[in-house]
Formats: sequence, structure tokens, C-alpha cells
Amino acid sequence: MAKPFIEKLAVIGVGLIGGSFAAALKDAGAVGSVVGVGRSRANLDRALALGLIDSATDDYGSALRDASLVMLAMPVGQTEAVLARIAPHLGAETIITDAGSTKSDVVAAARRVLGPRVPQFVPGHPIAGAEKSGADAARVDLFRGKKTIVTALPENAAADVERVRACWRACGAEIRDMNPEEHDAVFGAVSHLPHLLAYALVYEMAQHADAKRLFDYAGSGFRDFTRIASSDPVMWRDICVANRERVGEELARYQARLDEMKRLLAAGDSAGLERVFSEARAARDAWIARNSGSSGNGGGE
Amino acid sequence: MAKPFIEKLAVIGVGLIGGSFAAALKDAGAVGSVVGVGRSRANLDRALALGLIDSATDDYGSALRDASLVMLAMPVGQTEAVLARIAPHLGAETIITDAGSTKSDVVAAARRVLGPRVPQFVPGHPIAGAEKSGADAARVDLFRGKKTIVTALPENAAADVERVRACWRACGAEIRDMNPEEHDAVFGAVSHLPHLLAYALVYEMAQHADAKRLFDYAGSGFRDFTRIASSDPVMWRDICVANRERVGEELARYQARLDEMKRLLAAGDSAGLERVFSEARAARDAWIARNSGSSGNGGGE
Repeated sequence: MAKPFIEKLAVIGVGLIGGSFAAALKDAGAVGSVVGVGRSRANLDRALALGLIDSATDDYGSALRDASLVMLAMPVGQTEAVLARIAPHLGAETIITDAGSTKSDVVAAARRVLGPRVPQFVPGHPIAGAEKSGADAARVDLFRGKKTIVTALPENAAADVERVRACWRACGAEIRDMNPEEHDAVFGAVSHLPHLLAYALVYEMAQHADAKRLFDYAGSGFRDFTRIASSDPVMWRDICVANRERVGEELARYQARLDEMKRLLAAGDSAGLERVFSEARAARDAWIARNSGSSGNGGGE
Repeated sequence: MAKPFIEKLAVIGVGLIGGSFAAALKDAGAVGSVVGVGRSRANLDRALALGLIDSATDDYGSALRDASLVMLAMPVGQTEAVLARIAPHLGAETIITDAGSTKSDVVAAARRVLGPRVPQFVPGHPIAGAEKSGADAARVDLFRGKKTIVTALPENAAADVERVRACWRACGAEIRDMNPEEHDAVFGAVSHLPHLLAYALVYEMAQHADAKRLFDYAGSGFRDFTRIASSDPVMWRDICVANRERVGEELARYQARLDEMKRLLAAGDSAGLERVFSEARAARDAWIARNSGSSGNGGGE
């Protein structure tokens, strides 16, 4: 059991991510007390009942008073508005971090709102999640063995970055460092684009004149391919809008690849299709083999 | 235990599908004897050892002699060549069926090769499968509770269609009737297109300058989205080429939808993206709810 190195933690948005972060830090003995902030009183009451937080409020002033660390865990689209409510109450010793799935936009919002106090903001992104949400979805082991990306700013003090990293280590996460642009490029390709593609396929199918029959015959391949299309639409709307440039670039690359597939199909080019399919399978199987048994390949994104 | 209504079954290609068909009919007491035909002696020996078949041969003449039913269960691209080898030995009482994932091309091949004897061919497609292959992958319950599509020809005798249907019933499958064109339109949309899209995404990622790092950060969303890209490239090459017109049409519809997504992204149109994502999630969740607990939504395609 570690000595509490975070006297007071304030969690904005006590859902799957914020609730799991609080639960894991409590479990590790890393926090003194946790205050939860949120718009839904019912969810805060649930978080209290589950022991994820010790007190709840909708008052940013009391939540921020003497806070050692503030975790922003509401949907990423609300970052700027929430930072604006935090700023008037931000103590000189308080560190802010976040768990947003995009980073460039979050950093830009922090620079706009926090101005000269932006060094107090240490951005992060745990690569963990699920299709569920709310305090009830929180799990003490959600981040265990998962990657967390820390995208430290040049302005951050090394000691503040280290405290945020120590929190993630206490949650059992494996920490990777990136800058915000690298982060958004990587996750635009491996996470945001696939979500967009899955949503688009299900939407296309639902609009089909023959939709009823198509769904009737859809099998397990379709089910797995589209699992991520059951994710929270508001969360993914915010992510796609926030990272629209990189997602747009990756989408354009994919569209060019589909044009190539279309030409191969039209030409009945068996050898060309087999080459693409074989290389894809080999790349995927090698990836699965590298990650099987390892702890590094988890997460709901 | 039913009385054997298939005296002698010949299975061409004793792999996952052919082996499971033989095993299920034996288990149901529906067949007298099973002869396996294939190019790999090792696989046939394995099928003998597993008791899937009673004898093995690479000689079509002996396999076809007095056969009540011939099941074509090799990759669909070999259908025409295999029918050409069967034709000289085809007895007047023998019924041929198949398990190919495409139907229009199979029927066209049968008409070309069998000519006036095409009434003896009753095409089918069990909606079941897996990423595994070979006799070792065969399972007595592979088709239980799964759909099998029977695409009877106008020329088929009703009694012959009924015998094929009775075999699938004996395997525990739920039978649906379609014509070959309907079949290919439905599965082009719900199965063949998603496979093509998954292969294309993994291929695109593997070609990326940053491929190594992208795969390093790919998580469970990517894993499920691309599961079907670990399917057999030769099988799916054949399917895509055989059904290239319908797959090409569905791909074109999807590409138009992606153009729409690209415009929404470029415009930062939150409301538009949320509408698409929400409708997709609602359609998928309704589909999952309809099929949960039902037996109808299985299959590896």
C-alpha cells in the first residue's frame, strides 16, 4: 500500500473512466479523499454508494479548494467549457489532467482557457474503455495492463508530469509518451477511423431498401465488424470532430484503397485480390501473435 | 435415430464444411456410408481417423458409383472444374448439392457443365463457418441452429429438393429458400463487402509509413473490426470474384456513404455525425436484441 501522494482528487465526470480512475487510486492507497463533480445527481449518488468518491458536488469552487489533482473525465467536447469553470478556482499547487481520446484540441483549449497557467495541465489518454458508461460501469482494474498515453507539454514541470505518471502506474497502466500531434495521428488511424467506418456501414445497411432482410441474414462476421458501432454516438461525434483533420486524412487514404479494390473487382483480378487479402491476413496474424499473452493490447478503443 | 435416407454420400473436400456435414448426417443416422474425395491424402487420412468418412479416394469414378448424394465442399472457385470431373460418372439417380458461399456463379457453372442434367443439382449455402479449415476443424454441431439457404432451380424435381432439405434438417439447420440472385445480393451486402472492407483496412495499415507504431497502439476495437481479415484469402478471393458485380455495387454504395462522412468531417458537422452514429447504433442494438437468445444469428460469415 503506497502512502497517499494525492491528498485530494477531484474527478469531473464520474463515469466509466473517472470512476475507475478514482477506484484504482483508492485501491492503491494513493489518494486521501475523492470529490466527484457532475451534472447528474443520480450518477453522483451511485458513485457515492459504490464508494468511488467520498463526496459529491456541482460546485467547482468547493471541488477545487485544496485539490491536489483534477481529472477531467467528461466527454472530450466539454473540455473547454469545463476548464473555463475550473480556471477561477485553480490553486497554484493543483495539477489538472484529463482522459480525453483526442489531445491536440484539448491542449489548444487548455492554452486558450488557462493561458499562463497551462503548465499546470498534464494531458493524458488511457487506452481503455467499454461500450458501457456511468458510475456503474467503473472497475478498479479497468486500466490494469493497459496503455496510457501521457502527452506532456513543454511548459509542464517535470515533477507535475511525474505525479500524473505515478497515478497511472498506481492504476496498473503501462505509460507511453507522445506529443499531442503524434497521439492524434496514431489514434486517428487505429481507432477513430475504424469507428467511423463501422458506423457508416451499419447506417448504410439501415438505409438500404432491403434493410430488414439484410439484417436478418447478417452473421457473426458482421457482428464483430460492427461492434464498435454500438459505442456512444456523442462521445464519438466529439472525437471525430476534434480530430477531423487526421481522421479525414486517414479516411482519404482508405477511400483510395477502396478505389483500388473496386478496380480489382471490376477486372475480376483474382491475383490482385489474393495479394491484398494475403498480406492483410499475414499482417493481422503477426500482430495478434505479438500481442497474445501480452498485456499491451487491450482497451475498448 | 432416423432411417438412413442417403445410402451413399460422397463429399468432395472433407474440410470444415464437408467434414461437419458428414459428421452431422452420420450422427443423425441419415447416411449409410460416406466416401471422401480430396487432393490432400493427409487430410483424407485425418478424416478417416476422425470417423468423418468411411473411405477415401481421389478417383471420381469410384466415388460417384451408386452415390445418392454428392456434396461439393471444396473452395467455390473449383466448382466448374470439379463438376466437369463428376459429369462423366454421374448416375441418373444421384443428386448433387453444394455449400458454396456464392450461388449465381455456381449455378451458371452447373448449367455449362451438366447441361440437360442440371436438374440433378440442388444448390445450397450453410451460413456457418470459422477461420479454421481442414478435417480437424469439422464439428458435428457446426450447423445446429444455423441458417442454410437452399437456392433450388426451376428445373429441380421437388423430391430432390426435399432430400437436400432433409439432410440440412438432419444437421439441425434452419432452412431458408432464396433464388441465387437474391442470395448473392444479400450476402454481397452483409458478408462479402465487410470482408473486403476489413482486408482493405488492415492492408492499408500495413502499407502505412508508420505501420509498426500503428499496430502497436491498435486495441480491441481494431481487433474485432478486423477479425474477418484473418479469414482464408483464397476462399475470399474466389467469393469476391464470383460475386463481383453485387459486391461492386455494395462497395459503390458504401463509398458514396464515406464521401458523405468526409463532407461531415470537413464541415465539422457535429449534428450530422451524431445523427449517423445514433441511427447506426440504434439499428445495430435493435438487431442484436432481436437475435440475442435466438439461434438464427450465427455463422462465421
